[in-house]
Amino acid sequence: MSKWVYSFGAGHNEGGADLKNLLGGKGANLAEMAVIGLPVPPGFTLTTEVCTAFYKNNHAYPAELKDQVRTALAQVEKAMELRFGDSARPLLVSVRSGARVSMPGMMDTVLNLGLNDTTVEGLAAAANDPRFAWDSYRRFIQMYGSVVLGVDHHRFEDIIEQTKSDSGAIEDTQLSVLDWQAVVAAYRTMIQEEIGKPFPQDPEEQLWGAIGAVFGSWMNHRAITYRKLHDIPADWGTAVNVQGMVFGNMGADCATGVCFTRNPSTGENAFFGEYLVNAQGEDVVAGIRTPQPMSNAAAKPGEVSLETAMPEAYGELVKVRAALEKHYRDMQDMEFTIQRKRLYMLQTRNGKRTAAASLRIAVEMSHEGLINQKEAVLRVNPSALDQLLHPTLDPSAARTLLAKGLPASPGAASGAVVFNADEAESRAFKGEAVILVRVETSPEDIHGMNAARGILTTRGGMTSHAAVVARGMGRACVAGAGGVVVDYNAQTMSTGGRVVRAGQTITLDGSTGEVFLGLVGMIEPAMSGDFGTLMQWADDNRRLGIRANAETPLDAETAKKYGAEGIGLCRTEHMFFEPERIGAVRQMIMARDEAGRRTALARLLPFQRDDFHKLFRIMAGLPVTIRLLDPPLHEFLPHADAELAELASALGTDVESMRRRAVELAEANPMLGHRGCRLGITYPEIYEMQARAIFEGAIAVAKESGTAPIPEIMIPLIASKKELEITRAQVDRVAKQVFAETGTTIEYSVGTMIELPRAALLADEIAEVADFFSFGTNDLTQTVFGLSRDDAGKFLPAYIEQGILAKDPFVSIDVEGVGAMVRIASEKGRGVKPKLKLGICGEHGGDPASIAFCEEVGLDYVSCSPYRVPIARLAAAQAALGVEGDRTA
Amino acid sequence: MSKWVYSFGAGHNEGGADLKNLLGGKGANLAEMAVIGLPVPPGFTLTTEVCTAFYKNNHAYPAELKDQVRTALAQVEKAMELRFGDSARPLLVSVRSGARVSMPGMMDTVLNLGLNDTTVEGLAAAANDPRFAWDSYRRFIQMYGSVVLGVDHHRFEDIIEQTKSDSGAIEDTQLSVLDWQAVVAAYRTMIQEEIGKPFPQDPEEQLWGAIGAVFGSWMNHRAITYRKLHDIPADWGTAVNVQGMVFGNMGADCATGVCFTRNPSTGENAFFGEYLVNAQGEDVVAGIRTPQPMSNAAAKPGEVSLETAMPEAYGELVKVRAALEKHYRDMQDMEFTIQRKRLYMLQTRNGKRTAAASLRIAVEMSHEGLINQKEAVLRVNPSALDQLLHPTLDPSAARTLLAKGLPASPGAASGAVVFNADEAESRAFKGEAVILVRVETSPEDIHGMNAARGILTTRGGMTSHAAVVARGMGRACVAGAGGVVVDYNAQTMSTGGRVVRAGQTITLDGSTGEVFLGLVGMIEPAMSGDFGTLMQWADDNRRLGIRANAETPLDAETAKKYGAEGIGLCRTEHMFFEPERIGAVRQMIMARDEAGRRTALARLLPFQRDDFHKLFRIMAGLPVTIRLLDPPLHEFLPHADAELAELASALGTDVESMRRRAVELAEANPMLGHRGCRLGITYPEIYEMQARAIFEGAIAVAKESGTAPIPEIMIPLIASKKELEITRAQVDRVAKQVFAETGTTIEYSVGTMIELPRAALLADEIAEVADFFSFGTNDLTQTVFGLSRDDAGKFLPAYIEQGILAKDPFVSIDVEGVGAMVRIASEKGRGVKPKLKLGICGEHGGDPASIAFCEEVGLDYVSCSPYRVPIARLAAAQAALGVEGDRTA
Repeated sequence: MSKWVYSFGAGHNEGGADLKNLLGGKGANLAEMAVIGLPVPPGFTLTTEVCTAFYKNNHAYPAELKDQVRTALAQVEKAMELRFGDSARPLLVSVRSGARVSMPGMMDTVLNLGLNDTTVEGLAAAANDPRFAWDSYRRFIQMYGSVVLGVDHHRFEDIIEQTKSDSGAIEDTQLSVLDWQAVVAAYRTMIQEEIGKPFPQDPEEQLWGAIGAVFGSWMNHRAITYRKLHDIPADWGTAVNVQGMVFGNMGADCATGVCFTRNPSTGENAFFGEYLVNAQGEDVVAGIRTPQPMSNAAAKPGEVSLETAMPEAYGELVKVRAALEKHYRDMQDMEFTIQRKRLYMLQTRNGKRTAAASLRIAVEMSHEGLINQKEAVLRVNPSALDQLLHPTLDPSAARTLLAKGLPASPGAASGAVVFNADEAESRAFKGEAVILVRVETSPEDIHGMNAARGILTTRGGMTSHAAVVARGMGRACVAGAGGVVVDYNAQTMSTGGRVVRAGQTITLDGSTGEVFLGLVGMIEPAMSGDFGTLMQWADDNRRLGIRANAETPLDAETAKKYGAEGIGLCRTEHMFFEPERIGAVRQMIMARDEAGRRTALARLLPFQRDDFHKLFRIMAGLPVTIRLLDPPLHEFLPHADAELAELASALGTDVESMRRRAVELAEANPMLGHRGCRLGITYPEIYEMQARAIFEGAIAVAKESGTAPIPEIMIPLIASKKELEITRAQVDRVAKQVFAETGTTIEYSVGTMIELPRAALLADEIAEVADFFSFGTNDLTQTVFGLSRDDAGKFLPAYIEQGILAKDPFVSIDVEGVGAMVRIASEKGRGVKPKLKLGICGEHGGDPASIAFCEEVGLDYVSCSPYRVPIARLAAAQAALGVEGDRTA
Repeated sequence: MSKWVYSFGAGHNEGGADLKNLLGGKGANLAEMAVIGLPVPPGFTLTTEVCTAFYKNNHAYPAELKDQVRTALAQVEKAMELRFGDSARPLLVSVRSGARVSMPGMMDTVLNLGLNDTTVEGLAAAANDPRFAWDSYRRFIQMYGSVVLGVDHHRFEDIIEQTKSDSGAIEDTQLSVLDWQAVVAAYRTMIQEEIGKPFPQDPEEQLWGAIGAVFGSWMNHRAITYRKLHDIPADWGTAVNVQGMVFGNMGADCATGVCFTRNPSTGENAFFGEYLVNAQGEDVVAGIRTPQPMSNAAAKPGEVSLETAMPEAYGELVKVRAALEKHYRDMQDMEFTIQRKRLYMLQTRNGKRTAAASLRIAVEMSHEGLINQKEAVLRVNPSALDQLLHPTLDPSAARTLLAKGLPASPGAASGAVVFNADEAESRAFKGEAVILVRVETSPEDIHGMNAARGILTTRGGMTSHAAVVARGMGRACVAGAGGVVVDYNAQTMSTGGRVVRAGQTITLDGSTGEVFLGLVGMIEPAMSGDFGTLMQWADDNRRLGIRANAETPLDAETAKKYGAEGIGLCRTEHMFFEPERIGAVRQMIMARDEAGRRTALARLLPFQRDDFHKLFRIMAGLPVTIRLLDPPLHEFLPHADAELAELASALGTDVESMRRRAVELAEANPMLGHRGCRLGITYPEIYEMQARAIFEGAIAVAKESGTAPIPEIMIPLIASKKELEITRAQVDRVAKQVFAETGTTIEYSVGTMIELPRAALLADEIAEVADFFSFGTNDLTQTVFGLSRDDAGKFLPAYIEQGILAKDPFVSIDVEGVGAMVRIASEKGRGVKPKLKLGICGEHGGDPASIAFCEEVGLDYVSCSPYRVPIARLAAAQAALGVEGDRTA
């Protein structure tokens, strides 16, 4: 005979926390609390298997179920010394759903079940409060009527309104027992009308009706949608918990409340929560009365703490707090009711918390010996660290929402609206805080983005140029705010009928994607000692190396401060945009032949050498991976006519030939165009200059410090072995020349980005001439999906909403497709060179789920933007611990 | 002891045609001719293995070589009754290279070797012609001097010029024996100066010098480049042929000539060739004297045929012709010399021929029983058929070359230059022949392209829009003529200093990429009965189905005429551009909501239904694969301001909102943007309309004809199973509706393009909801390589030149990368559904090498443009026969 029902409380405990899959979260924790001796009103759980069987057998219950429920109910009656349907001492029960994982508000609940025309009098007598009893009865009819009988809730509300209007009352509290009796009568007449039969008076019929409604709610539309969104299988089913009712609203010696074992906002180890005297749970939520604090320590003047109001119950609750935290080894979120001074625990679960609290609780619990360091590392959500590293809006500050876009780069920023990069720079130079607002950004805006406090774009997704660069720089960014219309000519942005002019102040919240009018108060981040401690524990437990994507000395220093173990991606083109060199870059592009290009490149060489010199000095002793020029040349030419004219005169040429060259260079699909090693092969002098700058910079540091850096030179956009052979030979030739000229030889390596499907498919061949692979998963995602990250904003949100894609594949690696390519390339590459160094330098390098994938595939390191280095360190540790966990399992 | 030298001729035949790898083509065929009893001057071949050993052993010959050469030479002396270096009867030899495959002009040759100051007198006496002997001697010194001794050929020419000027001669023929003796003396002095030692007089030294030079020429720059371009491994090596000299220039009873067993131009089974009396081979080539025809039948008035001039030798040659063709079972290209009435064969090889000749020869040889039908099928190069299906320039017509671009779509066309599509259409409507000239074309130019005789673009590659569409339409096209500058405002195109105005006539040769000024005479294609015969034999031998890519009734009819077995790709968007519907398309795009889109789509529905109705009627009983809308919506909007304004007024909106919408729709990388099923998912009403049009059209044909067509509905740009699930469900829903409305149910299937790497990687999942896969290898090539076909023109030519890519991957499938994806998808798809129908509908479907790949992977069919259907039929047969060959091997 199968066991379908598990009792809990009053010494009959058949379940426990380990049976969560069978009993659901709520039922398992109720049983667990009862097992460890906490005061839980007795009850029983119909298992999730009942639900599964119910749906498998055409909405029929298992044969043994009725008997098992009857037996369990009899135990509850005995324990509570009450009887179901008894006119003098009636047992009332609650009937609640409870799935394996919390699905808040998705399914139905019925309270006060067991009341009828007879038992209501018994309750009135027992409570010595007829108004309480009739109020409870009408609440029960209302809840049962709508949940179980399917009567529209407006019908109930109309009757109460009518009653209030008849008796001249404004609030429910003004209604008398007689009023509630009239309401009950009206309810029953109305229900008879609606369903063609009377409201059930038999408690057992009520019980089975409620159980059926809870199981039925598992398949309601809301629940199905929720499961789809959260990837919860339908065959998990829900459990049903039937529990003896206790009342916090039976008088002044009753209360109800919600509390946390530690402060969920700060993590402080102090009892935290609130309660209401003479109230039910729903009253706390409704917010009509002001809840009071738990402890005297937390009470402000005029507040009465539970510690003062009900010292005995409070004392008991303090013990419960200690017991539960010790038992569950995590911060708990508890619900309790005090009925006539007696404490009852109705729920406990691991409490939700802020990032700061999460960090502090993990570290302190480990110091307290409650958990070990590995557990502490696993307790903190890496993504939440982002909040800690950037300023945030003061939750209490007033604000006026203007628009909403994508939360492209976290942090908050306020400043004057500016519509172009040059102005942003010049105003920032004068000390003004500015927000750069653009339809979209391009590499020529970088100086302005760097100067601005934040960036707002109206087009582009989470990995648009603006988003990627902003995250790299640690600037707040809201991207793709489609509702905002920017008019560069009029120097305005308008949204929802409001027009904001250049110079007006706005505030961005890059963590939520919100844009506010004016200045909104902010909280600066404070890095606690706990942060350092946890990072140390993470480092002790990770296998993956963590590097940063960095070009400027500032970026490199930030990266080092956050614990980067080298640079995994230095994008040399970013260095080309600085004002004093963009001229030479453009001269090179305008040159009609190789000689002209060489002249311009000779002007660039000292700048690039200096760039690398500085980076090598900061990263002394650490690896620095430098990617040679990648973007198509037209990215370096201005678009506006005025700028073209200016450039033409600077270069001593005419606007017409400038424009012709710009048109010549324009591409239908720049992402798939003349870029990467294709430039290096058609204009070998560019890579030659870059290689020379790298070797000269590295040798300068070697001479200065006695320790030679080991540059890792990376060739982008390789699709075939020959491309790498040719470009590698160029680099090797330059190395020989520079070594001969300087009389100094240093170690270096040459590798490639794997960012095209063809490179992944032919990785075995390519590995023969590569010292390392670095997965450029941004471009790999674009090519594997055939998806431009600049254009995806038009349909990707709809794709995620419809569940076609679980996540934005530019944010978290697509394991099935892009991941398959990474796996193929890793296996093929290591098949040829078992020790081939493998890393990842796409945006995914800072995403915890992607890092877990990198750990699984066995990459050597991940590289991410400097501000995400701590996140990557923690995620890498969790990935390693996860893998270890799997191994010992 | 290894055998390094193989004798041939005069009864000492050690080799044969089967030893081509060892003896090279020339040596093997000389031996073969000798074996079958033809008159071949005796000689011997130093094998290709000598060459390989020479390079392996640091330029040293194998030890046994000298002895083997000496023995073989002695046999030649004996057979010819001459002696090497003999003052009275000197043996002279030629020393020629001969690799496995012909490498014309790449390596060196030395004739008349063995002449010196003594033997020249012997030759003079034997020939009874001192001038002949001294001319031969100076030719030998000249050839040996430049080839073996490395003396610049100008030095020799200067001496002859000086001699001519001294003696007042204008032509070489005016020089006397004394003059030639003076030239020889001057040569010898000059050589002594140049190389510091005298010209070698010892014939044996001469011989080894020449042999060394031939082996050395295998590694000269020209040869290395040629091998790289033609994928010939360096370790194949070359052989060296040493052969007794015979002379066609010893008097009036001597002659030399080149002939073919059949006419290489028409294929006619008639002896074809030309000869010169008293001449050497080089005189035929030099063109100073006019060669005469072989037979009386071929002789025009005033010409003297060999048949008439030397009837005996001619009679012998006719027998040789018959013997060689019967022996080699293919048309032969032969060189012969007649020395004192005696015929000598110096070379035979399979003759090169035109496409028409190739076809005729294959069919006639099969009829003659010389080869079987399978062999006939294998004899014709499928790509050559292209020439037969389009008009070609008359080779004898005068022409002025203007520019050169890519041979993007074959055929020739003349017409007036027109710079926009509307004008092209209106002028063509009036009966004028026009050539549409554009920088590049876009879908809005299609009506103009269709109206034009040919298309010229200055940008874009072999698979640019212009090229693909032109091939599909069978229009001649020269694409990417980078040297031409088009000025739309001035209505001119200029190139190389010449300006061509609108209205002037130009001629395109789409088979060579040439552009000519004015009208150039043309030859219309004539489809012979042989063509039909060979196609029938091809069909008897192929496994792959052949379909066509076609949208219009005209295309469909052409396809059917050429033997297509259905439509493999009907691109519905092409149907949207017709003038009477583009308005509704644009109205749909401008609509702000679904209701507006539905109104516009309702206007389009009757047009689409009619389109499909017509296609289904033409393709009655054959499958028709229809791809739902694929390109991004902005392709349907005009770009020019004037057109935008016109459209705005037509749609009752303002230019500003038109422009805003155009900007909204613009994409950074349209290839990777909002297109394909992404449109179908975000605007489901579009696919719904298309599905309805398909089912209504098909049911109309079913009712009309009693036979229902089987539409195959194809969803483009699928990257995940869910996309196909969603769009397929839409189609199924519409099918149900239409079946219910019409009371008729028909069969149909729904499948997908596999054109993204992710679709290939997840093909097993996708196959669960697909009835068929069609590989869209154009887009797959773009994404696998990360290569935009519109932009590749900037570097792809350099890539092919440098050997990074063997071929343009848009023309012939990249087997290693793109092919790997096709293979993965085929295996995964068939792993789930063993009978899953697989086809290919990219441009590769008409490329023979790609078709061979499709055969190997086991696809069910290929689909190509209508004009390539015959090519595909033949290529498919050859692929099947190839595979069969491999199987029996």
